[in-house]
Amino acid sequence: MKVYNFSAGPACLPEAVLVKAREELVIYGNSGMSVMEMSHRSADYEAIINQAEKDLRELMTIPQNYKVLFLQGGASMQFSMVPINLMTTYKRAYYLKTGAFAKKAISEAKKVGEVIVPVSSEDKTFSYIPETTPDMFDKNADYVHITSNNTIYGTRFTKLPDTNGISIVSDMSSCILSETINVGDYGLIYAGAQKNIGPAGVTVVIVREDLIGKAPENTSSMLDYKIMADNDSMYNTPPTYGIYIAGLVFAHLKKEGGVEAMQKRNEEKAALLYDYLDSSSLFKPTANKKDRSLMNVTFVTGDAELDKKFVSEAKTQGIVNIKGHRSVGGMRASIYNAMPVEGIKTLVSFMKEFEKNA
Amino acid sequence: MKVYNFSAGPACLPEAVLVKAREELVIYGNSGMSVMEMSHRSADYEAIINQAEKDLRELMTIPQNYKVLFLQGGASMQFSMVPINLMTTYKRAYYLKTGAFAKKAISEAKKVGEVIVPVSSEDKTFSYIPETTPDMFDKNADYVHITSNNTIYGTRFTKLPDTNGISIVSDMSSCILSETINVGDYGLIYAGAQKNIGPAGVTVVIVREDLIGKAPENTSSMLDYKIMADNDSMYNTPPTYGIYIAGLVFAHLKKEGGVEAMQKRNEEKAALLYDYLDSSSLFKPTANKKDRSLMNVTFVTGDAELDKKFVSEAKTQGIVNIKGHRSVGGMRASIYNAMPVEGIKTLVSFMKEFEKNA
Repeated sequence: MKVYNFSAGPACLPEAVLVKAREELVIYGNSGMSVMEMSHRSADYEAIINQAEKDLRELMTIPQNYKVLFLQGGASMQFSMVPINLMTTYKRAYYLKTGAFAKKAISEAKKVGEVIVPVSSEDKTFSYIPETTPDMFDKNADYVHITSNNTIYGTRFTKLPDTNGISIVSDMSSCILSETINVGDYGLIYAGAQKNIGPAGVTVVIVREDLIGKAPENTSSMLDYKIMADNDSMYNTPPTYGIYIAGLVFAHLKKEGGVEAMQKRNEEKAALLYDYLDSSSLFKPTANKKDRSLMNVTFVTGDAELDKKFVSEAKTQGIVNIKGHRSVGGMRASIYNAMPVEGIKTLVSFMKEFEKNA
Repeated sequence: MKVYNFSAGPACLPEAVLVKAREELVIYGNSGMSVMEMSHRSADYEAIINQAEKDLRELMTIPQNYKVLFLQGGASMQFSMVPINLMTTYKRAYYLKTGAFAKKAISEAKKVGEVIVPVSSEDKTFSYIPETTPDMFDKNADYVHITSNNTIYGTRFTKLPDTNGISIVSDMSSCILSETINVGDYGLIYAGAQKNIGPAGVTVVIVREDLIGKAPENTSSMLDYKIMADNDSMYNTPPTYGIYIAGLVFAHLKKEGGVEAMQKRNEEKAALLYDYLDSSSLFKPTANKKDRSLMNVTFVTGDAELDKKFVSEAKTQGIVNIKGHRSVGGMRASIYNAMPVEGIKTLVSFMKEFEKNA
C-alpha cells in the first residue's frame, strides 16, 4: 500500500513520474538500454538533459542571460560554491539568519570572506522572518543571501527584502517550483532536488551570467560555475539518472498547468491545514502567521508525549514522516508539489479524530 | 531490444539489477514508497546504505581501519579532495602521468601543493605504463597517486609501484571490483560509480583512518573527509537512489561469486578479444601488451574511414558505443563486470565477419 509521505526531503514524487520511470527503467525508448547505462555524451542522453533544461526554463520563465546548471553536492555544496564564486569583488556578503540551513551557509561563507548578519530570528527558534530595511544593506557587498523557505521551522519570505540594489542569492531547496517568482529579481538561485524537483544527488543552480567567471585561480574546477557553465554541466559525468527523473517531474508539472497551477493548488492545500490548526484547541501552529510556509507546516500539541503518540498513531493510518525535525520537536507536514490534496485531507481528518479522542 | 552497450561510462549494469530496481521502483518492500522518496534518516534507508557498505567491505575485504564513504562529484571532485585532505604534511605528492584523467588529477593537485611527476607515458599517447624504481620516490611526500586503469587508452597497472613506503592513492574508477586487490596496499582508493558500481552521481572513497582529519581549517565541510566519515556519509543528503542501485550491484556480485569470480570471468572475456586482435590482420590492439586493461580494450584498423564504417555497421548489429575516445580515435570495447560473455562473443564474431569482408 502506498502511504502518504510527509517527509521533508527526500520527499514524495508524483506517482505518474514513478510509474513512467518504472516503465522505462530497463529499456528507454529505442535506445536499447536503461537511462542509467547511457553515456552522458550520447544523443539519447543529450536529448534528455536538454529537454529537462528547456522545460525548467519554461516553467520558471528563466531569462536568457541566466545559466541553468545541474550539479552535485546538494545545497550544502552551494554553501561553499556561492561565496567562492561570488564573494570576489568586495569579499563581503550579507546573510539573513532565518534557520539552521542559513546558519550552515553562514558558517561556510565565513571560510571565504566577510559575512554580515543584519537580522536573525534565532531568538525565537527561527519561528518568524525578521523585517529588513534598505539601510541595513549600506556597505559594498557582493550579494545578500536568503533562505526563501525554512524547511525545519515552516517559515518563508513572502516578499523579497529591498537590498539597496545588491544581488540576492537564494537557497530555494524547499520551495522551488512551488510558487511563481521573478527570476530576474535574483542574482543566483540554488536548490537541492530532493524536495520539489527529483531524487537526492542533483542540485539546480540558476545564475545570472555576469556573476560567473570570477572565482580565484586556484579554485577546484568542480567548484567553478564558469567551468560548469562553459561545459553545459558536462565537465564531468553529471548525475544522469537523477537529471532524467527531474526532467520527468518538469514535464509532469507542465502537463499539470505549470507553476501558477502548482501555486494555486499549494495555497489551497496549505489552507486546509492552517485553517484547521487555527481552529483547533489541541494543535497549535508554530510559525508566525504572516510568514507561514506553503511547503512545511509545523505544529505542536504542547505536550511532547502527546506529540509522540500522534506521530505513532498517524503512522498506523499510512500517514508517515510527520515528526518534526529533532531540533524543534512537534510535528511537521511537508506538503510539496507532489503531495496530493487527498493526503492533506486524510491528515486533517486524522487530526480531528485524534483531537476528539484526546 | 536490449543492445550490447560497450560504453566506457556510464556503462551497462547487470540486467538482474535493473529488473529488480524496476520491480521495486514505485514501492520498496513494506515501506509504502519508492527508495527515491525515502528520508535518508529513515530506518528503511539506513538499512539500505548500511547493507551496501557491508557488502562492499565483504567484496573487497576492506580492513576495519579503513572508512568507506559514499560521496558526490565523481572522480573529478576527488582530484581536488585528495590533495586538500592529504597533501598536508609535506605539501608535496608524486603523480604518475598515465593518461588524461591522471593529467586532470595533476592539474587540480597543483592548485593545492607541489606535484612531482617522476614518469609519464604521454610520449606514446599513454599506450603503456611506465616503469618506476623505488629511488624515484626519494623525497618526503604525502602520497603517490596512480590511475590503476586508464579508460581511454586501455592500460592498467598489473603490479603496484614500489613507492619507498609512501602511501599510494589510486583512482580505480574503471577497475574497482574487477579483480582482487589488497586494500591494505593503499592509503586511499576512489572510484566514480558509473563504470563498475552503479549509476553516475555516486563516488566511493575507501580511506585509511590515519590519513583523515588533516584538512586545513577553512576547507569546505563538503570537501573534508573527516566530516564525511564522522557523519557516515550523511553530513547532508547523500545520493540515496544511486547508493541503493550500487547496493543492488554489490549484492549481485556476491551472488555471482564475488570479486575473485569476476576476475576469472573478466580475464576470460578480455582474452577472447585480445586473442582475436593478436591474430587479426585487420584490427590492431593499441595498448602495450603487458599493460593491457581487462576493462577497456582499444584497437584500430589503421584507417580512420574504415574505423568509422566498423563502428557504424556494428551499431546496426546491436553493438553500440564501440567508438574510441575522441582524443585517440579507433575503437574501444569497455567490458566491465556487467558485460556478459555473450556480448564479447557477438562482438568478436562481428569483427571476424567485418575482417572477411574488408
